[in-house]
Amino acid sequence: MKQGNLLLAQSGGATAVINASAAGVIRQAIESKSFDKITCAHFGMNGILKEDFFDVSDLTANDLDLLAKTPASAFGSCRYKLPNFEQDSEIYKNIASVFERHNITCLTYNGGNDSMDTCAKLAAYFEKINFPCKVIGVPKTVDNDLVNTHYCPGYGSASKYIATTLEEIALDTAVYEKGRITVCEIMGRDTGWLTAACSVATLCGKGPDLIYLPEKTFDEDSFLQDAERVYRQKGHCLVAVSEGVRNEYGYVGANDILDSFDHVQLGGVAAKLSNMVSKRLNISTRAIDLSLPQRAAAHILSLRDQQDAILCGKYAVQLALDGLSGVMASLSVKDGMTVCESVDLATVANAVRLVPKNYISEDGAHITQDFLHYVLPLIDGEVQLEYKHGIPHYFDSSKLKRF
Amino acid sequence: MKQGNLLLAQSGGATAVINASAAGVIRQAIESKSFDKITCAHFGMNGILKEDFFDVSDLTANDLDLLAKTPASAFGSCRYKLPNFEQDSEIYKNIASVFERHNITCLTYNGGNDSMDTCAKLAAYFEKINFPCKVIGVPKTVDNDLVNTHYCPGYGSASKYIATTLEEIALDTAVYEKGRITVCEIMGRDTGWLTAACSVATLCGKGPDLIYLPEKTFDEDSFLQDAERVYRQKGHCLVAVSEGVRNEYGYVGANDILDSFDHVQLGGVAAKLSNMVSKRLNISTRAIDLSLPQRAAAHILSLRDQQDAILCGKYAVQLALDGLSGVMASLSVKDGMTVCESVDLATVANAVRLVPKNYISEDGAHITQDFLHYVLPLIDGEVQLEYKHGIPHYFDSSKLKRF
Repeated sequence: MKQGNLLLAQSGGATAVINASAAGVIRQAIESKSFDKITCAHFGMNGILKEDFFDVSDLTANDLDLLAKTPASAFGSCRYKLPNFEQDSEIYKNIASVFERHNITCLTYNGGNDSMDTCAKLAAYFEKINFPCKVIGVPKTVDNDLVNTHYCPGYGSASKYIATTLEEIALDTAVYEKGRITVCEIMGRDTGWLTAACSVATLCGKGPDLIYLPEKTFDEDSFLQDAERVYRQKGHCLVAVSEGVRNEYGYVGANDILDSFDHVQLGGVAAKLSNMVSKRLNISTRAIDLSLPQRAAAHILSLRDQQDAILCGKYAVQLALDGLSGVMASLSVKDGMTVCESVDLATVANAVRLVPKNYISEDGAHITQDFLHYVLPLIDGEVQLEYKHGIPHYFDSSKLKRF
Repeated sequence: MKQGNLLLAQSGGATAVINASAAGVIRQAIESKSFDKITCAHFGMNGILKEDFFDVSDLTANDLDLLAKTPASAFGSCRYKLPNFEQDSEIYKNIASVFERHNITCLTYNGGNDSMDTCAKLAAYFEKINFPCKVIGVPKTVDNDLVNTHYCPGYGSASKYIATTLEEIALDTAVYEKGRITVCEIMGRDTGWLTAACSVATLCGKGPDLIYLPEKTFDEDSFLQDAERVYRQKGHCLVAVSEGVRNEYGYVGANDILDSFDHVQLGGVAAKLSNMVSKRLNISTRAIDLSLPQRAAAHILSLRDQQDAILCGKYAVQLALDGLSGVMASLSVKDGMTVCESVDLATVANAVRLVPKNYISEDGAHITQDFLHYVLPLIDGEVQLEYKHGIPHYFDSSKLKRF
């Protein structure tokens, strides 16, 4: 029996596999034959409030295959913070009214920990007013900082790209007899998961000599000593540093801008450390910021990550059909295989999972074998892409019909 | 009949296929059975002067296949400027003496236009003193600024990476209803070949809205007007800009540092334009510098580029065996197929090939179909890589034996 329409919304910054999760949701919804229409919000919560939806009920298996290889929210994203119900109930009523008008009985919301907060609040509200719509969170963030999941879809592919790129930068920066101290800045906000992934390149013989995560207080003098020592030994030194490293005064790379969630905007730590090297060590240096490509580089997807992202999407729909709401489709590993579980959204919202101590060396400048055991399965396998005009052919949402 | 030893030297910055040319040289030298030993200078000219050589005579076909997929000079590089013979003849005598001691009868020198200058000078000196060593240049530069060749090995793969990355950045930066003006800085020194390659992404529907090359004088007001217009229309704007764009006063992104060839060090133009957008338009902005990965990203090689790089290496050896010296193995196209020709090194040394006028639109902010006809064949085809620990497996030169 059909039970109304499913709505999918994407939220937050790009990952290489957020659309793989969307493809999983859509495929499962189509196969379940439980929904009249399968729709996607244009620009996430903004599209919901404006009643701006795509109808994706008729996407073919080929369309979904292509979608599952395409980076960055194909249906548009948002950075939307739902206020507390007590502060502003109007918006909750608007959403319920839109959902009622469009007969939305299931919402899958794909995002990071801020989005899981929105998701949890909405699920609680719907339950409170007895509104017949299930709300399921689908995890997404390259930062890998969500709790209650083995890892977060998006992290595997970003890690594969970052480790590959650091391997290539290591080769590039080692060609001269007398090279430089090169400092690479890597995303991850308050956690070092992405930066730690560089250590895979080191495992392959070429990678960063020093790796600094936000989980250990950054000490400038130790950094300069370490970098100079490596440089004197090898003639060059490659440093990987998280955008969110902090010293005793706060973020090393902070500027004064706050984003829409009142988070400090990060960026510039590589430039700062590079200037420090230049001034205090008088050694030639270069700053590199891996920037957006690290979260959007679908041309080197991790097969495991992509498959798990699809799995999360499918499982989210199944959870709704099983009558659950206010839960997130979470990943765990049983006997080496990925399995999905549901976890309470309230336990995920706004929490941050740090890199555990046993993944970081005593000196705070290297990564341990324990971390490698964790990360290697997550970057395993490659996805064959279609190429057109010599570059990857990606899904084009501009021709989708509106709902 | 064996005729002494062949020496290969690599020079200048990384490309993704400089080792493909080396593999071509080594393979052809092995197959010709004309040399006693095949050797590579460690760190280019520095290795020559220090008599620090690898012996690669015994590399297997598998070794050479792997080498041909590995970015950045596997044998080490240098930035060495050979003085004029009239100014300093000592170094020329040193080189001849090293070559005599090691019975080097053929030198293939792989580099850009500065390296072709070194190559031309050395060939002229050897001819003058009747020294029995052939000197052949093998072209290499991502900048594509060498004259007398259809294109330069390294350019195809860098273009493929850049076009792919700009496509992915375009997808990433279009996800929000209200986005930013994003400015991407691309290599190429005084020429816009690499930046122009971004236009391939535009051909695929997602790419930069505005593209600025050094071949047209950069006008800040036009840039701000163009960027604001696109932003107001689309809600976001992606700009690709060459590191070497110049206004009436000189390089927009110049700093005060000179490199060892007395070239101004470039970098920072994206940050400067981004600040300009922020201050004068008060629109949210982001600067991205594609940095080293654009020249070292062998994980997305152009098959055509790689094959042509190998071809140049093989042809260089053949030229020497045919008795030529002071020439470069150059690429041209006949009936749609790549063929090699020899061109006089003196005509290549220090010359710079600019992007022709018919490749740039009248408004100076877009690229024409003529350029696309030129570039598309150069980024065609993919190379299958081996993966190990989830990342590309590259050639390891640390275990090579010394000569």
